[in-house]
Amino acid sequence: MADLECIRNVATKVKRAVDAGDQVAVVVSAMAGTTNQLVDWVTQSSALYDAREYDSVVASGEQVTSGLLAIVLQDMGVDARSWLGWQIPVRTTDAHGSARILEIEADDLDQRLSEGQVAVLAGFQGIGPDGRITTLGRGGSDTSAVALAAALKADRCDIYTDVDGIYTTDPRIVAQARKLDKITYEEMLEMASLGAKVLQTRSVELAMRFKVPVQVRSSFNDVPGTLVVDEDQIVEQADISGVAYSSDEAKITLQGVADRPGVSAAIFSPLADANINVDMIVQNVADDATTDLTFTVPRTDLARSLSVIEGLQGELGYRAVTTDDNVVKVSVIGVGMRSHAGIASKMFAALADKGINIQVISTSEIKISVLIAADYTELALRTLHAAYQLDSA
Amino acid sequence: MADLECIRNVATKVKRAVDAGDQVAVVVSAMAGTTNQLVDWVTQSSALYDAREYDSVVASGEQVTSGLLAIVLQDMGVDARSWLGWQIPVRTTDAHGSARILEIEADDLDQRLSEGQVAVLAGFQGIGPDGRITTLGRGGSDTSAVALAAALKADRCDIYTDVDGIYTTDPRIVAQARKLDKITYEEMLEMASLGAKVLQTRSVELAMRFKVPVQVRSSFNDVPGTLVVDEDQIVEQADISGVAYSSDEAKITLQGVADRPGVSAAIFSPLADANINVDMIVQNVADDATTDLTFTVPRTDLARSLSVIEGLQGELGYRAVTTDDNVVKVSVIGVGMRSHAGIASKMFAALADKGINIQVISTSEIKISVLIAADYTELALRTLHAAYQLDSA
Repeated sequence: MADLECIRNVATKVKRAVDAGDQVAVVVSAMAGTTNQLVDWVTQSSALYDAREYDSVVASGEQVTSGLLAIVLQDMGVDARSWLGWQIPVRTTDAHGSARILEIEADDLDQRLSEGQVAVLAGFQGIGPDGRITTLGRGGSDTSAVALAAALKADRCDIYTDVDGIYTTDPRIVAQARKLDKITYEEMLEMASLGAKVLQTRSVELAMRFKVPVQVRSSFNDVPGTLVVDEDQIVEQADISGVAYSSDEAKITLQGVADRPGVSAAIFSPLADANINVDMIVQNVADDATTDLTFTVPRTDLARSLSVIEGLQGELGYRAVTTDDNVVKVSVIGVGMRSHAGIASKMFAALADKGINIQVISTSEIKISVLIAADYTELALRTLHAAYQLDSA
Repeated sequence: MADLECIRNVATKVKRAVDAGDQVAVVVSAMAGTTNQLVDWVTQSSALYDAREYDSVVASGEQVTSGLLAIVLQDMGVDARSWLGWQIPVRTTDAHGSARILEIEADDLDQRLSEGQVAVLAGFQGIGPDGRITTLGRGGSDTSAVALAAALKADRCDIYTDVDGIYTTDPRIVAQARKLDKITYEEMLEMASLGAKVLQTRSVELAMRFKVPVQVRSSFNDVPGTLVVDEDQIVEQADISGVAYSSDEAKITLQGVADRPGVSAAIFSPLADANINVDMIVQNVADDATTDLTFTVPRTDLARSLSVIEGLQGELGYRAVTTDDNVVKVSVIGVGMRSHAGIASKMFAALADKGINIQVISTSEIKISVLIAADYTELALRTLHAAYQLDSA
């Protein structure tokens, strides 16, 4: 929702769906810049602000756009009304600023929809157990949309964004990147959490749980986007659906750690206690009584991680700590790899062939991730995109 | 509420009252310019907008300032929370855009206040019987404040404005104008509706009905303002409290109207049916079988009034219609005139002495109004201000 022009543009799309006979509920975000302005005012008012007041202030942005879109729709002859989070109501936890949706009482809404009225819903907001406005955290409008689609048992949830779908990899880096027609929830989750920041992770989790088909599409054109669906909705599944990357991690290596039971727990429990999310872990084969331990943490937590580790020096007796935040995690993702062997070896061979050194490896059922030097990011993406025949459809 | 600086300024005043041991509920308006921006967006979205959506959009302005003020107060160590109209709740009629308050359920609010928490209330808004946000019309924050003061049985309702009180007349015109320490509700009502646009008329009516003492004071300094109170609270009542003027009326004269019973009804009933508010009326003494009839209507309704009157030509058979919108209504106002004779004759003599021709006269229990040519506005105000000894205290 950039401005009034954008609201008219959305209204045109809604009217088209109504004219085609669809029942339509549309979830809106705030106008461009509005949320930032409101957050600025809050933080200028107090560094330690009350999250309940923050929510009341910030939720006003969607209140404005929902009313305006309803008015524009009415002006086009479409029966429409706005609904605020507390009016529906969208009941959430009391975790103000990052509340989770508990329940949506959609009976009234459902009734109006069945009477042909378009529901324009203020996204990102709900009402807490204390009767006060809550917000769902940044990007929460996606979550609102999926949750409402689930509550309304909608045939589909379309998410309009500034990109026209999900790509096999970042098209700004790999010119041959292709838009995917379909992708599974599981793959989308890996894509989302790995840096393809199109959909909020929570919205994808929710869509998967309630099996809501989600279409990611562009606000600026009418080209069909990418459908995020259950695995059984995709007949011909490629081995690999996409290649993602993330520059958000930093590497820590502990050299000369004693190679005895309980060492891992002694390192990782204190990090977990400090709320630091350790991602990739690799332990070298011991060549004597000691070993090297390498792992990654969020780059923003690097300094905190080091101070935790330094506090463990006496207990662990490691020889040295080295860090590297000039690394990137590159992942190949695809539910197809469950039933196909050789996916990982193809990845390692393709990277080796280009002289790219793999520092850490981690795998899950549907993805293989490697940590490499950040300088090789583009080369690695192009190499893997070609190796898995993603360049051609 | 101009901006964040203004919000901090208000917070300082609130903290001072709290430190002095007062229980404080503060009603806020939107930031300067916000309401106009929101209204602009609505009217740009549709010329014929849905008033329910308008209310939801426009009420967001006070939602923002109430949250921000609560945060600033907390930052100063004052326990505070914001309350939106629907949270209190302030129940109103369903006349969206200009709703009237029906009932305020202030029990929760009262409980919090007695626990020492400052209540920051979003003014101008309520909730309608349909569960949707309503607004009270422009200046509605004054009405919110007085209604809440009544519901909370407050000792006093302070209204912070851009003037530091109610003056004996417009100080921009009469240099000797004095700020009044006290004024009665009845006088304030006449002042408000006559163009001294400090308080919304409805807020004064409400204050009078519930006997809420209202103090009009400046946001910019700490000088005591003017107290609007019941008549029995004013010991020494002057004959005249103030001289007001209004340029909002236009004069219509029907020449040669048949002088027979039923003629007035034949003219004024159709105007009333057209929702045109006729104010002053004078009928000349008939010199034959016909008479001249002069009256005033709101200037903005002049064209509509004429078209109603032209439709009555056949029935009334008047000779001609003349109009004049270059007129001003000047009034002297004072509850003291009830018990003092000679107030009117002093007015007429003073104006005659300066050669000011009186076109129409109307009186009520506590005011005398005359219609004069607009060119004489300043002269008339200065003359009357001196004639009633308002120049010196």
